[in-house]
Order: sequence, then structure tokens, then C-alpha cells
Amino acid sequence: MKLKFLRNLHHIAVIVKDTFKQPLIVCHVQSFYIGTFSFKNQKWGSTKKHRNIKLKNLYLEGMADQKIEEILAPLRAQVKEQGDLVRSLKASGAPDIELKKAVAELKARKKNLEDKELSLAPNVVTFDRAKMEDLLKRRFFYDQSFAIYGGITGQYDFGPMGCAFKSNLLQIWRQHFVMEEQMLEVDASILTPEPVLKASGHVDRFADLMVKDVNTGECFRLDHLIKAHLELLCANQKTSAELKAECEDIVVKLDGMSKDEMAGILKKFNMRSPLTGNELTEPIEFNLMFSTQIGPSGLIKGYLRPETAQGIFVNFKRLLEFNQGKLPFAAAQIGNAFRNEISPRSGLIRVREFTMAEIEHFVDPLDKRHPKFYSVRDIELILYSACNQMDGKPAEKKTIGTAVDEGLVANSTLGYFMARIQTFLIKCGVDATRLRFRQHMNNEMAHYACDCWDAECLTSYGWIECVGCADRSAYDLTQHTEATGVKLTAERRLATPKEVSVAEAVPNKGKIGKTFKKEAAFITKALENLKLEKLDDLEGKLSTEGKYVLHTGDKEYTLEKDMIEVKRYQQIKHVEEFIPSVVEPSFGIGRIMYSIFEHNFKMRENDEQRTYLSLPALVAPLKCSVLPLSRNDEFQPFIKTISSSFMKVDVSHKVDDSSGSIGRRYARTDEISIPYGVTIDFDTLKEPHSVTLRERDSMNQVRIPVHEIATVVHNLSYNKDTWKNIEEKYPKFEQQDAKA
Amino acid sequence: MKLKFLRNLHHIAVIVKDTFKQPLIVCHVQSFYIGTFSFKNQKWGSTKKHRNIKLKNLYLEGMADQKIEEILAPLRAQVKEQGDLVRSLKASGAPDIELKKAVAELKARKKNLEDKELSLAPNVVTFDRAKMEDLLKRRFFYDQSFAIYGGITGQYDFGPMGCAFKSNLLQIWRQHFVMEEQMLEVDASILTPEPVLKASGHVDRFADLMVKDVNTGECFRLDHLIKAHLELLCANQKTSAELKAECEDIVVKLDGMSKDEMAGILKKFNMRSPLTGNELTEPIEFNLMFSTQIGPSGLIKGYLRPETAQGIFVNFKRLLEFNQGKLPFAAAQIGNAFRNEISPRSGLIRVREFTMAEIEHFVDPLDKRHPKFYSVRDIELILYSACNQMDGKPAEKKTIGTAVDEGLVANSTLGYFMARIQTFLIKCGVDATRLRFRQHMNNEMAHYACDCWDAECLTSYGWIECVGCADRSAYDLTQHTEATGVKLTAERRLATPKEVSVAEAVPNKGKIGKTFKKEAAFITKALENLKLEKLDDLEGKLSTEGKYVLHTGDKEYTLEKDMIEVKRYQQIKHVEEFIPSVVEPSFGIGRIMYSIFEHNFKMRENDEQRTYLSLPALVAPLKCSVLPLSRNDEFQPFIKTISSSFMKVDVSHKVDDSSGSIGRRYARTDEISIPYGVTIDFDTLKEPHSVTLRERDSMNQVRIPVHEIATVVHNLSYNKDTWKNIEEKYPKFEQQDAKA
Repeated sequence: MKLKFLRNLHHIAVIVKDTFKQPLIVCHVQSFYIGTFSFKNQKWGSTKKHRNIKLKNLYLEGMADQKIEEILAPLRAQVKEQGDLVRSLKASGAPDIELKKAVAELKARKKNLEDKELSLAPNVVTFDRAKMEDLLKRRFFYDQSFAIYGGITGQYDFGPMGCAFKSNLLQIWRQHFVMEEQMLEVDASILTPEPVLKASGHVDRFADLMVKDVNTGECFRLDHLIKAHLELLCANQKTSAELKAECEDIVVKLDGMSKDEMAGILKKFNMRSPLTGNELTEPIEFNLMFSTQIGPSGLIKGYLRPETAQGIFVNFKRLLEFNQGKLPFAAAQIGNAFRNEISPRSGLIRVREFTMAEIEHFVDPLDKRHPKFYSVRDIELILYSACNQMDGKPAEKKTIGTAVDEGLVANSTLGYFMARIQTFLIKCGVDATRLRFRQHMNNEMAHYACDCWDAECLTSYGWIECVGCADRSAYDLTQHTEATGVKLTAERRLATPKEVSVAEAVPNKGKIGKTFKKEAAFITKALENLKLEKLDDLEGKLSTEGKYVLHTGDKEYTLEKDMIEVKRYQQIKHVEEFIPSVVEPSFGIGRIMYSIFEHNFKMRENDEQRTYLSLPALVAPLKCSVLPLSRNDEFQPFIKTISSSFMKVDVSHKVDDSSGSIGRRYARTDEISIPYGVTIDFDTLKEPHSVTLRERDSMNQVRIPVHEIATVVHNLSYNKDTWKNIEEKYPKFEQQDAKA
Repeated sequence: MKLKFLRNLHHIAVIVKDTFKQPLIVCHVQSFYIGTFSFKNQKWGSTKKHRNIKLKNLYLEGMADQKIEEILAPLRAQVKEQGDLVRSLKASGAPDIELKKAVAELKARKKNLEDKELSLAPNVVTFDRAKMEDLLKRRFFYDQSFAIYGGITGQYDFGPMGCAFKSNLLQIWRQHFVMEEQMLEVDASILTPEPVLKASGHVDRFADLMVKDVNTGECFRLDHLIKAHLELLCANQKTSAELKAECEDIVVKLDGMSKDEMAGILKKFNMRSPLTGNELTEPIEFNLMFSTQIGPSGLIKGYLRPETAQGIFVNFKRLLEFNQGKLPFAAAQIGNAFRNEISPRSGLIRVREFTMAEIEHFVDPLDKRHPKFYSVRDIELILYSACNQMDGKPAEKKTIGTAVDEGLVANSTLGYFMARIQTFLIKCGVDATRLRFRQHMNNEMAHYACDCWDAECLTSYGWIECVGCADRSAYDLTQHTEATGVKLTAERRLATPKEVSVAEAVPNKGKIGKTFKKEAAFITKALENLKLEKLDDLEGKLSTEGKYVLHTGDKEYTLEKDMIEVKRYQQIKHVEEFIPSVVEPSFGIGRIMYSIFEHNFKMRENDEQRTYLSLPALVAPLKCSVLPLSRNDEFQPFIKTISSSFMKVDVSHKVDDSSGSIGRRYARTDEISIPYGVTIDFDTLKEPHSVTLRERDSMNQVRIPVHEIATVVHNLSYNKDTWKNIEEKYPKFEQQDAKA
């Protein structure tokens, strides 16, 4: 689990063009997004208007060329200067407030640098988000839930193509992670009682700040509201340069601001509801979990889980037992989680209901080596380390072996998973050049994590976190142990048996029973769990004051000297207990899907209208289309034969015998990303019977015997053969299909 | 969707033995269950005590032999007599109350008959539920959620073995239904806004009756409470025979009783809380949906969906469009649904959170034939028709072809799915002799359904509904159309174009606008939607009274004669619109899993302690174990080779190189239902390298070359080869493993 998982959008420069294709602005994408769209009214049934905005997405390849580096050099130096200041403040133990200010300034300088970097990046990809979304909605990959009822923001339904894509993605995830590592997959409850999420920290800390319109009750996420207000102010020609600079400064530092600081800004700028102009309430902390009652009494408060991980931690004992007490092992879970976002926008990127796939790899904190690390050592990743971020340096390409050897990545288990995550993402269609691993900086890392790297994909929304990969130490198991009194520990065999001093509080059960009656058993149990230092304290108090006050839960009991005795003795131990550490790769499936959509959305050369998705066959919703050239009855038996031969080898397919031309029908199948297409034509009727097989991306075709087609398409669909091989093996078919 | 889905337990006789193995009682299983266990305190953190009760499950094979029939004849006659009475009351349009009484009596007689039938059934299976549950929990197939926090009733977590079994089951479901029929699978939102569930009927009608302890607030499901109270009364030796008879009568009729009738019984017997003896409140209707708020305003009420079906209905337009406007087509969805049960017991059978798999097959109501019905015609099902239930006759074996031809099953689409459901269930491990299709009787069928058959599995809980298969006519699409004004219709091409009379209300927009201002557009829209008879009425009123009062929503508007004109004309139509009918097979995945567990729980002959699960390889959590005879280092390379060859062909497996004897290790793998086991022994080291392959159920072994093992196990695991074949092809290996 990770309190801030999937919550940060990172920086990217975009050139925004309006509908008249005039360049409008170059800015930070998140700012742009909020500055340009008006706040969407999220009330039930309200209408939503989008401006049809085209984005040109510029992106960074990891390394910039020399000329660009010259321009960036002073900016890099500015970042480094500030990074060094932050380091020295930390080292000298400077007050928190000073450190915080320095970090905010560091972030501002980093942003300047990144903006410049992106605006100079040589590799410009043309991407039209509106066009892609049109395709995805029109062919029902996904669309807003309950649209006929006016819809709800932040909820999406996956249609047949989206659902099949998702299901294939999850199946590959299972093979790639669960099967390959023989992980223990579980399927735990979504409805979670409050004490569990109290222990995990979600009840107290999983909140965003918001303000309400005092008259209508309309809610606004505070940071979004401030940002939008200040950006409008900046866009106003009448605003002075000085004020503009102040606004920009605030926007950049907003991320790290406290509730009070934001409240001050709200007051200073006299901000009001952007919808009604009404006054706003003070900032309110809004917990992002959906709450409900379990059972009819109304007394058991529950939440929809905000992540799947807790379902694994609470089952740790059973899982360890299933694994015959041995470490390391990993548990995994695929399932839905829920977050009641204040005002979700950004399509699939920020939603209220989403599928996660999480792995919790439990390991002995004294030995975090991964036994299979050798098999991934040479895989190259683009690493954007905390150091480089502090020093104003760009991301670097490195093998994971080097990164672990250098100590950049904390241990080889973390490194193993990072490499495996990359392999998985690329296999499923993420563009390797738009993927990086960004290390959390000290100030953004959850307090319980030792090291954390996010796999980020570059999209038109900026770099978005798709997979978090954190070494979470023993945080969660410790929390649940403390909350329940159930030891969530493993045992480590000692190399040599160890003699240890044991101290033990031995209660006089008779006396305690007489004094405390029903509560005696509870007290006895509490005494058993006392740690060594507490026992020392107890012994001291008993001898000096003659009594000891035992605190347990929210109660206290005064114990007299004759009720208890501390026994000390030596014991030989062959094993020792410890709380395992956890390395957690945590996948946001919707975000991965969205990134894959963007990375695979294409247009045919010279035909802007003919868009398609080039999803890898492995994840494509359907593997093959079957198209008779015309509605000739003689084609029917071949359609049936081919269709049932596909069924036998699990090739999902779609027969399209509608009346459009072959070209038009191929265009339709390209839209839903079907990688292969079989055409039955008049030559098929002749012996030896054969069909054409077309590949989506190249649009090349070959001629293949009917009895071989199922095997060929099966092998292509499951990465057991390549199109290049097939083109070499079978005769090329020259007829053009491109013109609809 | 189905308001009462998975809510009825049916009747079964059980012999209950207490821990001293003395027969205790023969009774109705639901009654027994409540009468014997005390009410479990469902408060957070409370402890639960189970009596270790052994059940002997007697079951019916569908047909009883002649001698038994003689005994049953008078009971059958009694049912038939009452069935005929019900029929004649219906025919003569007797008052509702009389009909209801007659039906209650019919049910009582049916129950008598079924109890007798079961007690005489020759085929007695010994089944020990406590032993099975012990195995399932010990090896973490599933267990109570959040147990370290005290647990929550009605929620279960699936561990590695349960999760893998479930995931295999769902994967087969996808192949068997979605792939085979090229259904459109969707993945819709769980959080559902109130208006959607208002339209579907759930907000108003999806409730159970409960009473509360006036002091503690403890809640009890009313029917369970009454049953338990009366059964305790019956068990009391001091209770008079007369009172006993009255109690028994009430228990039988409880199902059909109204809130007031139950309240009367509560008062008459002065029932109090079984836990505290405190007084109880009046009966309260408790809606079974979990409610929450969507978004931060607190204004959008939402529910966790109580079924997945609505997510398909609200997407009907998009799905029809995806299918290029053509009917019939089916949509499918696998997902979680939630029901806030008042006091769930019965393990996996009644839970608060569960996975469903639902199919909505949309079809033209004028032609409900299924194009592939020919392929299932000859499949035999055990059918327990409504008629037979009314006539006191047993279930009958029939081919589905005959059942549809006779009109017993309403149409061939319903019949097609029933046959396919049976094939699926048996493939996944349901015992065919413990499976029947029971038709809903008129009085239990939801008001919108035309015909409904439940696939029921016989378990120690009785016959439990695992799959509902209903012809739901046009109910849901009609409801959502009415609620949203969005037409959820399809078009049918007319054989010959039709000239139709069209009437249309033409508003005088100027006048209406002047009079009604802002509301004018709303009125114009309402006028467009007026149906023919309303238009006739409007025309009449305008000519006789000079005005017409338009009711729309909860408003009314008085329209003057000069505001509106009714135009009538002829039009040629080539298509006509209609609301499709829906045939809905709806699968309760947890219940199916539970039934499969019971049907496959076995003990080795002469060894009660050695229990195992004989799940079909297709759904077994793992397909193969790999066991080196000892920890000899020379075995290691073979373990690696075999393990990676299994990985390549998707054979999930488990290497167990722990120190136990081979027999003991096989016993452990049998417990988690691994169907095949490979042993690496000293002969393996010799060339040609070979291993033994053992089959779980027969415990027979053969000797197989190492390079063939992966293919052999793959083919066995995915039903591409049979064990019999393998035994014929490879040499038998004689060494015994049975003794641990």
C-alpha cells in the first residue's frame, strides 16, 4: 500500500493549439488543463462541454544533444545549487520550515529546467487526444458510466474491446508475475472494517483538502482551485509583472503547502467559487475513502478499500504458513479499489473506481538479495534518480545490474522487480522511449519507505505514474501487529545457537483474579506482551514505589508488589523472530491501459481520417478478423471452417460479412486493433484452398493454405512466431486493400 | 438482474449426528441449521463457537425405485390434490388471500413429500462438512476476512488455492460462453447512482424484514428468528402436540407471509431477543444494498451494485451499435456484487460480497429461437418442472430438445442456455447426479419473468441455486427507457413495408413560449412523446373543453386550444422499433465453487484421515507437483529442466523438495487437489532420463521420458488427452506411494 499512490502528475511541456490550429500557449500540462477547461460541474446530470483542443506532445528521449545541453547548462546549475543547499540544510539539522522552503524553491527550479528540456526536445510526436478519445468511445473501448442517466465523473465502463484488452493484460500479468515467480495470489474482500484502515493509516491520513461554496455546497479541490485562480490572474493582461511572478511562485510551491498556508492564499486573493462567485468555506480535510455500514445495525463502519494491499497484509500469517514458513515469498492480488476523488478529471488517469494489481514480496530485512537477479542484470532502464533530480541532471540509461552495484537502487529485489516491470510494460505495448523510472526524493517518499521508484509513462497528460515499486520495510506488518496483538513475524534460523537473557513477568494469578475479576485474563495477557524495557521499568517501580501502573489499550490498572514478579534467566535460541520487509510493485491497470492507448494510436500516412490502434497482438482484444470478399454463398463453408479452427486454438476473432468494401472493413478492424485479417476470396474456392492473411501495421498480405491458417495466426498472436518469418515463408499477396 | 436471485434455500433431509456420532434429528436443513446453532453474534470482534457436527447427506438421484414409489404415492396424491385446487382457484379468479393460503398449504405438502423422498433415497453419500471445511481453511482455499481483527461474518478471502481455482473457473466460463458465442463482454462500474437502482426496482423492493433488540440494537432477520423460536418450542417436551402442529404449520408457511402476518406471530408467541431476552421492535424493512456517497458534496447517493446486470442494460445502446444494430446478441459481465445480509451464515453460500458472472442475451420477442439449438438438442437434463412440483411428481430426465418441443421450456434460447450451463458445470466438477433444473412456480417467479429455471446443486445445505436462467422479457430495458427518456430499442425490418396512420401533436411554439417561457422546451418535448391514446384524448378535450391538462413528471400544464394541433397522416414504414427481450443466465461463482468443493471432497479408502479434493484438472489450482525423491543434489538439474518446460506450456506447478516421505508429500498435494505428480528418482539419473507420473484419483503411476513430460501433462491438464490413454501408452510404475 502507498498513501500517495497514483496521485502525482508530473511535468511536461505542451503546445496547445485551439480549434483554428493557432499555437496558443506553451506551459505545464496540469496548469494548462486546469487553466483552459472550466471547472466541470460534477453535480448529477449536469452537462459538460469540452473545447476541442489539439495537443502536440513533445517528449524527451532521456538524452539531449550537445547544443541543447549548452542552453540547459545554466538551468541545471541553478537546480544543483539549490539541491546542494537542501543537502547541507539537512546535514546541519536546520529547522523544518527552512528545509521546506528550500525544497519548494528546488522544485520550482526543477520545473523550469524540465519545461525548457521538453520545449527543446528534438523528437516531436504529433498526437491528437480528441481524435483518439473519439475512436475509443465510438468503438466502445470505454465510456462514461451511466451516461443515459447523465453520467458520473470519474467512473468509466469498459465495453467489449476495452474489457477484452484489460482481460488480456491481466492474463499476461498473471503469467509474467504470478506464474513465473509462483507467487501466492489471493482474492480478498473489498469492504473493509474501519480498524484495519485505521492501523494502515488511511483513516487518519488519506485525505485531500477542499473548500465548499457556502451557498450551494459545491466542492472544489483546494490546490486545483488556487491554481486555476492564479493562472487566470496571470493570463489577464492587466496583471502586473510582479503579481504574475508571485502567482507563478505560489503555483509551483503549492504541492508542499500546509493547510494554513493555503488558507492564507485563499484569503489574500479573496478567492470565490469559480461557478457562482459565492464565498467559500475554510479548507476542509476530506477523506478519500467511500464509507458505508456493514450489517444492519449501523454500528460497524466500513470502507471500500482504497488499495488491495491490506488484504494481503492481514492474511500474512496464513500465507506464510501456506509457504511452509519459508521466506522470501510473494503474494499478489488483482482487484478493484476505490477513491472518492473530490473532482476527478483527466479521463482514465484519475478515477473513483479502478483495478489494481499489487505484489507484496516478503523478505528478510537482513538479506534483500533476489535469487534470480542474474537473469535481469543486463536489462537497460532509463533511471531518473533523486540525485539527478536534485542536481538538475537528466535521466540516464543504465543496466539494472550497474544501478544495484552502485547502490543507486537500494537492493537487488527492488532492482529485479523494476526490470521485470519494464519487460512487462513493453510486452503489453508501452513505448520504451516514453517510459522512465523516477526515484522518489526524500521529501516525497512515504515515511515508511526506504526506496521507491515509479515507472512513469509519458502521455499528453505529462509523465504519469503507472507502477510504483517501493521497498516499504516492515511498516504495515508492524502496524497490524500493534493493532491486533497478533504477531505477524517470520523466523530466521541462527547460524550458531545464541544464549539470550530472558525476562518475564510472572503474575500471581490468584491475587490478580481476586482484585480484577473478569479483567484478570486481559491483564495477564498484557503482562505477557510487555517488552524488555517495560519490564525493567516495572521491576524498578515495584521495588521503589511498591506498585506499577499498567497501561493497555485505553485502560490502566494499578498492580501491587505482591501481584507480580519478574523472572530473569538464560535461554538457548536456535531461531529468532523478525518482522519481514516488503517490496511492493503496485500497478494501476487503468493508467497502464491509457498509456498503451496513447502510445499505440496511429494515423495512416496521408490520411488523417484513418486512425487505428497498433496494440501488440498479445493484448489486442481480438486476434483476427475473417472477411469474405462478398456475400457469396460459396464462401460460407470456409467462414465456418476457419472460425471453428480458430476456436480450437483459442484465437479470438470476428467474422464481418457486412456489405462494405474489403478496404472499409479492414479500416473498421484496424480501429479496434485487430492485428491480423483473413480474406476469403474466389481463389479460396479453388484447390488447394487458400486465403490471404493481412498484418495491421504494415498492411502487407500473404497467401496461406486454409488448413494452416489457425496455427499460423495462433503462433503470431501468442508471440510464438513473427510476421517477418511468415512473410518469408509464404508468397506475398499484392492486391491493395488500403483504399476504402 | 433478479431481485430474489440466490436467496432461497430449498429442502433437504439430513441426518445430523452430534460429536458422539449419535443420530440426533432428521429435519429440514435450514431449520436444523438455525435450530441447532445458536444465533451468531455478528458484532465486531465477537467470538463464534461452532459445534462440530457431522452431516450425512442423503440425496436423490432423480428417479426413485418402485418400492419407494409405493410409499410416496399417498404423499404425491396429497400434493396433486392441493396443486389442482390452486389451479382451479386461479382459473376462477378467486380472491388473493384464498389463493395465497392454498399455495402455502401446497408448499407444506411439497415439503412433506420431499423430506420423505430424501429419507428413502437409496444412494447415501457420507459427507463430513466439518472435515472438508477444516481442509479448505487449513490449506487456505478460503477463510474469513480480517480474522486477525476478529473477522466479519459473510465475508471471505480466497487464498492461493481458492483464488487459482476461481480464476481457472472464470477463464473456462469466458471460453465456454463469451468466446464460443462471441459475446460482448463488458466491465462496468460497481458504484451505482441511486436513480439507476430506483428504475430497476432495487431501491424500493430489495429488502428483507428484520427486528431489533430494543436495548442493544442487535438485529435479527425476522423469518430466521421466528423459525428458530418455533423450532425450539417444538423441541421442548412440555409443548403440547397441538401447539407443535401449529408451530410446524407456521414454519412451513413463513416464506409467503406478509409483514403484518409475521408481526402477529411475533406478538402471539411473545418472542424476545434470543441473546438477551429483551423486547424486540416491530418488523422493519431493511434494504440489502450498501449505500454510500459519491463525491464530496454528500448529495449524490450511490449504492454498491447488488448484481452486475444493470451495468449491461444501461449500456444497451452502445452495445447494439457495436453489434452494428443486429439482434440477437449477448453481453456478458464478470464482477463483484454486494448485499448487506442481515445475519449471514452458511459459509460461502450466503455472503455480503460475491462474484457473479451474468449473461444478457437480447432477442427479438417475436422470434426467440436460438440458431445453435440443434447442437444441444440431445443433451439430457434433470428437469423439475413447476407442474411436477404442483402434482407431487419427482424430477424427470429429458433431452432439452424434447422439453422445448413439448413447450415445457418456453423457447429454444432458454433451452440452449440451460444445456450449455449444465455442460459448463459438469466440466468444472459439479456431480451430474447432484444437479437439477428447477422451474420457478408462478407464485415465486418475479413479476417480469415469463419462464425461469434454476440450476440447483445438492449440497449439505440442501439444494442450492447456483445459476438462474430466466426469460426476463423486456422489463429492464423498459424501466430504464421510462426513467431516462432514452429509447433502448432495436429495429426489425418489415417483410413488407407497412402503411401506418401517424398522429402527431404540433405545438404552436410562439404561443407556448409566450405563456410558459423557460418551460416551453420541456412541454414541447413532452408533447412529442405522447402516445396515440393520449393524443386522442388531447384532441377530444381540446374540441370539447377547449383546453387540455398535460401531466409530465410531477408537474402539470394547462394548454389552450390555440397552442396545439393534432396532425394525422399516413406513412410507409420499412422497419419497426421494439424493445428486445432478455434471456439471462446468472451465475453465483462462490456457490458454484462451494458445490464443486462438496462434490469433490473425498477420503481414501480405509483412511478417514487422508482426505483430498478431486477437482477436474481443468480447474485445479495447480496442475502438477514436482517431487525429488530426496534432497540429493543430482536431482536439482532435473527439477529445473522440468519446471521450466512446464512454464513454457503454461502448466502451473509446485516443486516440493521438503524432507517428508514421498507418500506424505503426495498426501499434501492431494489435499490441494493437484491432479498430477512427477517424481524424480535415482532411475531419472540414468539414460534415457525418465520420471514417474502419478494420477491423483487412482494413485496409479506410469514412467515417462523427461523430454515428453511437459507435453503429456499439458494435454492431460487441458482435456486434450486422457489418463486412460496415457496408462495404455506408457509403462506402469508399480511402486506404492499410498503409505505415508
